[in-house]
Amino acid sequence: MINLLVIGTIAYDSIETPFGKVENTLGGSALHFTNAASFFADVGIVATVGKDFDLSSIDFLEERNVDLRGISIEDGKTFRWEGRYGYDLNQAITLKTELNVIDKFKPRIPDDYVKADFVFLANIDPELQLYVIEQINKKATIILDTMNFWIENKFAALIDAIKKVNILVVNESELREITKEYSLIRGAKKIMELGPSFVIVKRGEYGVFMAEKEGIFLTPAYPLEEVFDPTGAGDTFAGGFMGYLANVGEVNSDTIKKATVMGSVMASFNVEDFGINRIKGLKYDEIRGRYTAFKRCLHFEDIEFK
Amino acid sequence: MINLLVIGTIAYDSIETPFGKVENTLGGSALHFTNAASFFADVGIVATVGKDFDLSSIDFLEERNVDLRGISIEDGKTFRWEGRYGYDLNQAITLKTELNVIDKFKPRIPDDYVKADFVFLANIDPELQLYVIEQINKKATIILDTMNFWIENKFAALIDAIKKVNILVVNESELREITKEYSLIRGAKKIMELGPSFVIVKRGEYGVFMAEKEGIFLTPAYPLEEVFDPTGAGDTFAGGFMGYLANVGEVNSDTIKKATVMGSVMASFNVEDFGINRIKGLKYDEIRGRYTAFKRCLHFEDIEFK
Repeated sequence: MINLLVIGTIAYDSIETPFGKVENTLGGSALHFTNAASFFADVGIVATVGKDFDLSSIDFLEERNVDLRGISIEDGKTFRWEGRYGYDLNQAITLKTELNVIDKFKPRIPDDYVKADFVFLANIDPELQLYVIEQINKKATIILDTMNFWIENKFAALIDAIKKVNILVVNESELREITKEYSLIRGAKKIMELGPSFVIVKRGEYGVFMAEKEGIFLTPAYPLEEVFDPTGAGDTFAGGFMGYLANVGEVNSDTIKKATVMGSVMASFNVEDFGINRIKGLKYDEIRGRYTAFKRCLHFEDIEFK
Repeated sequence: MINLLVIGTIAYDSIETPFGKVENTLGGSALHFTNAASFFADVGIVATVGKDFDLSSIDFLEERNVDLRGISIEDGKTFRWEGRYGYDLNQAITLKTELNVIDKFKPRIPDDYVKADFVFLANIDPELQLYVIEQINKKATIILDTMNFWIENKFAALIDAIKKVNILVVNESELREITKEYSLIRGAKKIMELGPSFVIVKRGEYGVFMAEKEGIFLTPAYPLEEVFDPTGAGDTFAGGFMGYLANVGEVNSDTIKKATVMGSVMASFNVEDFGINRIKGLKYDEIRGRYTAFKRCLHFEDIEFK
């Protein structure tokens, strides 16, 4: 029985970084998300691939209780993305996007997925995000991601979708573009006035800013000697975040903060290798170990004042 | 009896930000540093000003036990800097620099300053930093700051100076330029091989990265709704940092981490108004209050693993 549903993309990515290059590696928001979330929750994926997709390449997810029946196989080719990073790994340069089967993606939610209490609407057309919201459990906790393209081209639909979700997850420039506020605090307040109770702002190597009505929570990113490939780090963060929430089954200030830390831990693994490779081979004990190391980087003794 | 010595600049700054502009406001590394550090330690300033400088404007520092006798008054005009910031307040655009009396600055350390156990070598010519190191207490804990100009024009002297100090404080691009390493961890390791035990990397609104032999410590910056004027934030950080260290009188992993947090707290005040204004009028209780608020932004309950 799945308790976490994701609607997003499955892709073949070709990536070049200062450390190497790879062609047609597994990627896409739904896959990065699920790869991380499946350590904590029973995930169901809704996505579409082309006839060229090698389904056996994601068999390993079934061993982590992932339900793959929501993946539709359509005539045509799988979505492809080609990108490059310089030393500033915060910014990808998109070299080529082939939408292929994604272009006609119309996410139908299988009956037994409808009851999931946690839902991740990955970065897709906000009209499709609204279409998904209509189909799912009205009590579900929904987190929504988006990108500059939808902010610029489907703004009204995006705002409608944001009004209907509990958590918005975006990066700094997306929050600024949506709210027309430079200040993250002011921007987050505007979002919360629309509906969401929590606004999560991803800042890449600088960590995460989270706003809720009671205040702000901040966490840096786990420090790595080298970031190898940042592709999918945001979706991996969301996977660790929502996987943790679905696992504890409660959404409040406390669990959201812990989920933010868990998302950061998972994202720190994702960037250590191309595509989904690092987390594909990850062991649960490594998650615990990194969490402990991360806590050590954040700890300081309380300061006594006169 | 001073226990913290600073060698740096006193300036008249003209600053424009998206929120307003100000002309000939008090500034300079030594003044920003002292303004913050004087809440915690007895500071002695070594700096130079011109005959046009209004000494009564810094009288308020004497009430915080600052020793101003190390300020030499020379024929000529006080150092002036003119700069502008856009919405990205991490990057200042220098419009004009008038060195004036700074050009012939040759820091002589007064006899009763020589015994100070803590010394901040603010961003000045590394040859002068070396000249100061010759004059001071051999057991002093020394922190050194610098800038791209010296990295590019006095690299050998800068490296000599770095070899003789305990703590290096720089921003990300400076660390990368000195070490030719993109990775902060690798860069910090190279610095520690030269001599310093601690490397502090200032990341503006994203907080601070600190490296020591035993590991990394990270702290975000205190979240403000608006950053009004970032000028002097780095020196204010150093002031809170060294002031705290001089106050506790011990330098180890624990105190360095707490000092990093205190530096961040003080820097968060500095950016709330032009120049030194906010911290000039600051009350000690406000420091305690902000520290408490800051801790709340960083706190999360421990995650339990299966």
